[in-house]
Amino acid sequence: MIIDILIEKIKQTNNPIVVGLDPRLSYIPDFIKKEAFEKSANTPSGAMEAFWQFNKAIIDATYDLIPAVKPQIAMYEQFGAEGIACYIKTIAYAKEMGLTVIGDIKRSDIASTAEAYSDGHIGKVKIEENGFEIYREDFITLNPYLGWDSIEPYIENCKQYERGLFILVKTSNPNSGQLQDLDVGGMTLYEKVGELTEKWGECLIGKYGYSSIGAVVGATHSKQAQDLRKRMPHTFFLVPGYGAQGGTAEDLSVCFDKDGLGAIINSSRGIIAAYQNKKYSTEFSEKEFAQASRQAVIDMRDDLNRVR
Amino acid sequence: MIIDILIEKIKQTNNPIVVGLDPRLSYIPDFIKKEAFEKSANTPSGAMEAFWQFNKAIIDATYDLIPAVKPQIAMYEQFGAEGIACYIKTIAYAKEMGLTVIGDIKRSDIASTAEAYSDGHIGKVKIEENGFEIYREDFITLNPYLGWDSIEPYIENCKQYERGLFILVKTSNPNSGQLQDLDVGGMTLYEKVGELTEKWGECLIGKYGYSSIGAVVGATHSKQAQDLRKRMPHTFFLVPGYGAQGGTAEDLSVCFDKDGLGAIINSSRGIIAAYQNKKYSTEFSEKEFAQASRQAVIDMRDDLNRVR
Repeated sequence: MIIDILIEKIKQTNNPIVVGLDPRLSYIPDFIKKEAFEKSANTPSGAMEAFWQFNKAIIDATYDLIPAVKPQIAMYEQFGAEGIACYIKTIAYAKEMGLTVIGDIKRSDIASTAEAYSDGHIGKVKIEENGFEIYREDFITLNPYLGWDSIEPYIENCKQYERGLFILVKTSNPNSGQLQDLDVGGMTLYEKVGELTEKWGECLIGKYGYSSIGAVVGATHSKQAQDLRKRMPHTFFLVPGYGAQGGTAEDLSVCFDKDGLGAIINSSRGIIAAYQNKKYSTEFSEKEFAQASRQAVIDMRDDLNRVR
Repeated sequence: MIIDILIEKIKQTNNPIVVGLDPRLSYIPDFIKKEAFEKSANTPSGAMEAFWQFNKAIIDATYDLIPAVKPQIAMYEQFGAEGIACYIKTIAYAKEMGLTVIGDIKRSDIASTAEAYSDGHIGKVKIEENGFEIYREDFITLNPYLGWDSIEPYIENCKQYERGLFILVKTSNPNSGQLQDLDVGGMTLYEKVGELTEKWGECLIGKYGYSSIGAVVGATHSKQAQDLRKRMPHTFFLVPGYGAQGGTAEDLSVCFDKDGLGAIINSSRGIIAAYQNKKYSTEFSEKEFAQASRQAVIDMRDDLNRVR
C-alpha cells in the first residue's frame, strides 16, 4: 500500500516534508541557465534543460533527508511537449533516488476522460497489445467538484498498481472559502468533501490506519485543519502553505496525530529557491544553491519536529 | 472579443455545434492505425500519429459546417510528451482551418501555478526576452472549487490576447449533484457558482451581450439548465451531454436564448466515431469515416435547429 511506504519513509527520515519541485526560471541560478541556453537557445527546450539540471541538483542534495517530492505539473505543462518530457524525467529520477512522488495535477474530469488521466498518470496506457506506464507518479492530486464520478476511475489503478490520491478538501489560498466555506446544511462544503474523502478512502486503508486516498488541507487555515484532523481519522493530509504562503509550524501542528504522523507538509520556493533568501544567501553562494536547499530542508524539519 | 467571434461563426454556419476531438484508439479506423503503427510501431508516438491523421481527416471533412472544435486534453496527455505535441498540432491545424478552439483542460489551481497554466494555454510564456505562445486555445475550461483565486490569473490574458474561459457550473455526469446540488443557503452550489461566473464575466462582455467568460452546463439536467439560462443572461453556455450521454435536442432547447444563441452544444463520440454507429455504418464504410462524421454534423445541426 503506497501510503504505508510513504509513512515508513517519513519515519526513516524523521521528516514529514515534501519538497515542491515547482521551478521557475527566476529561481534558477544564472550559471545553469547560461549553459542550458547555450545548448538550445532561449527556447522551451533550453528552459527545460535548465529545469532538469536544477531539479537534479536539488534531488541529489536532499534525497537522503526527505521522504518525497511534489512536482507541480503546471510549471512544466506551460512549456508544451518539452515541459511534459521534463516533468516525466524529473519523476523518473526522483523515483530512482528512492523518493515517493506526488504529482500535483489537480485534474477534474469524469468517465472515459478521467480514465485517460488515470491510466496515463498512475496506471497503464494500452496501445494494441502493449501497456505503457507514462508518468509514474506514486500519488496524484484531484479536484472533487464533479463528485465520485471524478474519483472512482482512479480507484482500480490505485489498487492494481499501488498508487494513491490526495483530494482537494480545503486549499491554502486566501479566497478558498468563497465556495469551500459555504454552509451546506450543518457543515461547510469542505467538511462535506472531507467526510466524502474519508468514506472514499475506506477501500484503501493500510497497516498504519491511514488510507492511500488522502486530502489536501491548507496550513493557512489552522482551526479548520484541527477540526478536519478529528473528522478524518483515516485520511492522511498533504499540507501546502508552510513558509512562503504564511503558515507556521505552530499553525500546522494540528495536522499531525498523537504519533506525529498523519500529515506531510509541502514547501516549494522556501526550499528550492533557498539560496535567494537572505537567511541563506550569506552562507551559500549561487553556485551552492543545492546546498542551501539542503540546509533549508534541515531547518524546516527541525522546525516541524518541535511541534509534532 | 473572442465570444463575438464564436457567435459570428455560429451565425455564419447556422450551427451551434462544437465537435469534441477526443479520439481513442478504438474509434480510429484500422487502416489509419495500421499505417501509423508501421511507421512508429505500437508506441505512444505511433498512437499519436494515428490520432493526428484521424483528427485531420475529421477537421477536413467538417470545418466548413461548424464553428468550433473542443479537443479534450486528457485523451492526449495520457500519452505523455508525444500526446501533448499532438494536442498542440491539432489545435494549430483547427485554427488554420478557421475554427475556434475550446481546450477542455478543466484546470484548477491558484497564484503562480494558475499563471503558469494561463500563460501556457492562452497567453505567452516568457523565456528571457522571448515570449512563446505554446497551446493557443481560444477558450479553455476551468474548475471553480478554489474560488476567484483560481480564475483571476486568467483574466489578464483573456483581455490581452482575446481569449475566453468556460467555468464548470453544472456538469453532465450522473453524480454531479453530489456536491453541485447541495443547498448553500437558498440556492444550490451550482447556482452559486453560476452567479459568481455571471459576475466574473462582467469585465469581458462583447457586442452581442455575452461574456468571454462562459459556463459549462450539462445537457442531461434540463430543468437546471433552464433555470441557469434565466439567472445568467450574459453567460454563454458550453453544453456537454448531447447524444452518447443521453441529452436530447428537446432537453437542451432551454439553453438557447430567444435568438437561438447563448449556447454551443458539444458532441464527441457521436460525431467522430459516427461510422461505428449503426445509423451510419450501412451508408459509410470505414474508409469513409470522415464523411460519416460530416453527415453526423449535418444531422445534429438539423436536430438542434428544430428546437432553437
